[in-house]
Amino acid sequence: MSAPIAYHPGKQPIPRNAWYVVAFSREITQKPLSRRLLGDKVVLYRTENGQIVALADYCAHRAMPLSAGTVKGDCIQCPYHGLEYDPAGKCANIPSQPQIPRLMKVRSYPTVERWKWVWAWFGEPERADPSLIPDHSEFGMDNTDFWSVDRFVMSIGGSYQLLHENLLDLSHVTFLHAGSFDSGAMASAPQSTQVEGRLISITREVTEVVGAAYGRIFSLEEGIRVRRTLRSRTWVPSLNVVTSTFHFLDEPGRPAAVRHSVFPITPDTATTCHYFVGTAHSYGEPAAGDVLKAQNQVLFDVFLADKTAIEAIQQAYDELGAATPDCSVRADEAALKFRRLLDGMIGEEAGSLAVA
Amino acid sequence: MSAPIAYHPGKQPIPRNAWYVVAFSREITQKPLSRRLLGDKVVLYRTENGQIVALADYCAHRAMPLSAGTVKGDCIQCPYHGLEYDPAGKCANIPSQPQIPRLMKVRSYPTVERWKWVWAWFGEPERADPSLIPDHSEFGMDNTDFWSVDRFVMSIGGSYQLLHENLLDLSHVTFLHAGSFDSGAMASAPQSTQVEGRLISITREVTEVVGAAYGRIFSLEEGIRVRRTLRSRTWVPSLNVVTSTFHFLDEPGRPAAVRHSVFPITPDTATTCHYFVGTAHSYGEPAAGDVLKAQNQVLFDVFLADKTAIEAIQQAYDELGAATPDCSVRADEAALKFRRLLDGMIGEEAGSLAVA
Amino acid sequence: MSAPIAYHPGKQPIPRNAWYVVAFSREITQKPLSRRLLGDKVVLYRTENGQIVALADYCAHRAMPLSAGTVKGDCIQCPYHGLEYDPAGKCANIPSQPQIPRLMKVRSYPTVERWKWVWAWFGEPERADPSLIPDHSEFGMDNTDFWSVDRFVMSIGGSYQLLHENLLDLSHVTFLHAGSFDSGAMASAPQSTQVEGRLISITREVTEVVGAAYGRIFSLEEGIRVRRTLRSRTWVPSLNVVTSTFHFLDEPGRPAAVRHSVFPITPDTATTCHYFVGTAHSYGEPAAGDVLKAQNQVLFDVFLADKTAIEAIQQAYDELGAATPDCSVRADEAALKFRRLLDGMIGEEAGSLAVA
Ligand code: FES
Ligand code: FES
Ligand code: FES
Repeated sequence: MSAPIAYHPGKQPIPRNAWYVVAFSREITQKPLSRRLLGDKVVLYRTENGQIVALADYCAHRAMPLSAGTVKGDCIQCPYHGLEYDPAGKCANIPSQPQIPRLMKVRSYPTVERWKWVWAWFGEPERADPSLIPDHSEFGMDNTDFWSVDRFVMSIGGSYQLLHENLLDLSHVTFLHAGSFDSGAMASAPQSTQVEGRLISITREVTEVVGAAYGRIFSLEEGIRVRRTLRSRTWVPSLNVVTSTFHFLDEPGRPAAVRHSVFPITPDTATTCHYFVGTAHSYGEPAAGDVLKAQNQVLFDVFLADKTAIEAIQQAYDELGAATPDCSVRADEAALKFRRLLDGMIGEEAGSLAVA
Repeated sequence: MSAPIAYHPGKQPIPRNAWYVVAFSREITQKPLSRRLLGDKVVLYRTENGQIVALADYCAHRAMPLSAGTVKGDCIQCPYHGLEYDPAGKCANIPSQPQIPRLMKVRSYPTVERWKWVWAWFGEPERADPSLIPDHSEFGMDNTDFWSVDRFVMSIGGSYQLLHENLLDLSHVTFLHAGSFDSGAMASAPQSTQVEGRLISITREVTEVVGAAYGRIFSLEEGIRVRRTLRSRTWVPSLNVVTSTFHFLDEPGRPAAVRHSVFPITPDTATTCHYFVGTAHSYGEPAAGDVLKAQNQVLFDVFLADKTAIEAIQQAYDELGAATPDCSVRADEAALKFRRLLDGMIGEEAGSLAVA
Repeated sequence: MSAPIAYHPGKQPIPRNAWYVVAFSREITQKPLSRRLLGDKVVLYRTENGQIVALADYCAHRAMPLSAGTVKGDCIQCPYHGLEYDPAGKCANIPSQPQIPRLMKVRSYPTVERWKWVWAWFGEPERADPSLIPDHSEFGMDNTDFWSVDRFVMSIGGSYQLLHENLLDLSHVTFLHAGSFDSGAMASAPQSTQVEGRLISITREVTEVVGAAYGRIFSLEEGIRVRRTLRSRTWVPSLNVVTSTFHFLDEPGRPAAVRHSVFPITPDTATTCHYFVGTAHSYGEPAAGDVLKAQNQVLFDVFLADKTAIEAIQQAYDELGAATPDCSVRADEAALKFRRLLDGMIGEEAGSLAVA
């Protein structure tokens, strides 16, 4: 058997044969956008016909960022000496000569636009099967029984691994977000963990009274009693969905309320990541305008605590390496399964098959 | 004989079996303080009973800084998932389970509160003997014939070695601090050097007329004639005391005036240090309030020249390594002894005994 | 034959047996100037007699920057312990003792003041022959038929190699500086390339109508028709001169107008450089005061596009190393010759003679 890969956020390779969200749809226009994704610098643009293009953000000629250039029809033109590239990354024009060298091309990444965001594939292009993207309708997106909204992307100065582990240990809700997402009982509620392929699920159930901040965040009335199931699911390596289902204990006729928080997590570099946030709701009114802005601000501020924690822990790994403290408790069962599944993907991509 | 360790501020190990000042007492409260000391990140707090605690600032669970947490009685609680640690560093509570793994603990550092500051020990705990801390009464602290005051701590972007060498070559006073600490004769006055165990002393004597800035700093009258002994003592590796004794040549009956500047020097990282400043005076009035603030500001501004010099020299070592210029003169005798004593401590801690 | 050195801006050694411009004359006064040149920290000052001195900016005693010190007559005095050095770098005074150790000296660099700038030599001093400096009169400087002006120095966060290559591919003028230096035809005009020793020349010829911004930059009337020869010459490794010669197609009697842009390029570190700019003009009025300031500002702003491009490409090399895209076209002929000549100089200095 191959030796297990030592856990080290920020030092392990990133699985590339997987779909990752790279942007909200609204972010991609004819003004090129440069974004670092899985360590690669990528330029994203929309052609005049509306197609989304993702290319390596280095001109094949002299490595100038194409993102500093201009979209012309389907192509993007390099600002330095004017070479143009088509959506497949092939050079389509060289101003100073008619012939185009065969090697004058840049890498093109497969993309899929789904719901309100864009997924891209950074691995072997022939394996880029769109059916591998988890079902959006199941999360309330593209589902007419729900209203859904794209919220914001937060830049986090820590590995995507640390963010996934954060979302797979719900005990942190009680402490790091005291009062914001629960009423104090979540950490001590029993947690059950399931694994199915690359999907890890954890569930906790509490009966609690909705507090003020918590009620504001979930659009629930302060002071009501609820039985609540909190479920966090991670599709390794790029998506987490947290689902809260509320049963109203004092109102037998009131339908259960469901809220999905859909969190694509995309490595920027090995030690930084993009944290995309969208939500879908079975209850309440669709939010827009200033109401949406205010909701987003509240959520963003609460998530800053996660950002701060993850960045501090990343800094510990960067400084201490293998000596970084990492003593697990029972609530870490899901996080440890995450590491194992990730190790499996990394090992598979490295061609290192486990042999008994 | 083992080869001498090449002198290289910022690259040599730091002796750990020694007491270092880590804070002024007033800095340690129930609000945890994070400070880097000898390269370690340490959280310092005071229990509800007033005891000072120094722990490694990484939670044993997932490396979160405990300094972002909260003091509860004797313990400190991690802000991420709520684990608590007692003053010995042992985990005392895990919210999500009753059992506490044996390895769930963090390092605890011995501390001693003396005069108005806190000393800590970073080496083998069984060797942490408080009687190894130099006698404070001898420096005028805890001595009722003197008044003493804790002034400030300055962060210096250079090795503690460079700061000690600065204080062991008094010729710099005449140039780097022209007019502030002498009247121009110090650099050319003969210097005598003594070594006793880990204590290095240098002495210079001058007869001079007190200038304006110099008089303000020492609370002496401008224009008077003094015979002055300037003595600088370093207890390798963590303390320097500069003592000025003034005899008043035109006032035979006036008692000699003594001022001790007590400078604990504590490595932050290998290339940065904390410069603590306290003074004790046999003459004049105890300073407080705005007078003290103004005194501190004047002193701080003068010390900025040392900070600038040391940071520039550290940068030279960082860039040039072994090629850094280092041609000594006679006034460097004490600095060279400092290097030798430090090498001895480092060699001893590395287990490399010198054999003839 | 020795293996060719792989092209990698920022990683290859810098030729030192060559003259480089280190400052405008006006920059060197009795207030010492610290400048990094070919990786060396150098202090530049003018003695009380007006002589220019260039010394290593590290005191031989304890590596303090001499540039923080004071010029006294011919010497510079270190601010830390007061040692003084003469223009040859020899220590001339130690305040704390009469004897001067033989090794108490710093490196002195040969300098030549020519036209309005200062050249220095960083290699073997015995090879520092001033006649190796290219003829300034030929560029219109020190030539009474022209007026010439020293403009500005721009700091560029990329290798001097990338800046030279920028100036040796005139096709970039049409795109990176669209409208500023040509009317759009330069990129597609045929380019001829010559090499003679360490001098590389390229020439392009266009017939065009002078546009608004272009006319303002060259002090020509908007809308007139010109036949223009654009010539760029690089003396490897430290100088580029771009010469524009305009023939006025609708005014047979008007004499041709010549403008030389003289660009000494001096490595700061391996990945940063100083871009000096001076110009000489056969036509128009000498600029001064606010007119000169305004001209400089316009030129500086246009050059910012080169700075941005070069810094982005340097970043690509820093990140991608040997994987940096570098697929050449025919317009790169001169740039490729530049690389070859530079490799030759580097190889020669490394003592690796090419053997057939
Ligand atoms: S670098 Fe893109 S065209 Fe030259
Ligand atoms: S990291 Fe401290 S409790 Fe989890
Ligand atoms: S460092 Fe220059 S005189 Fe000491």
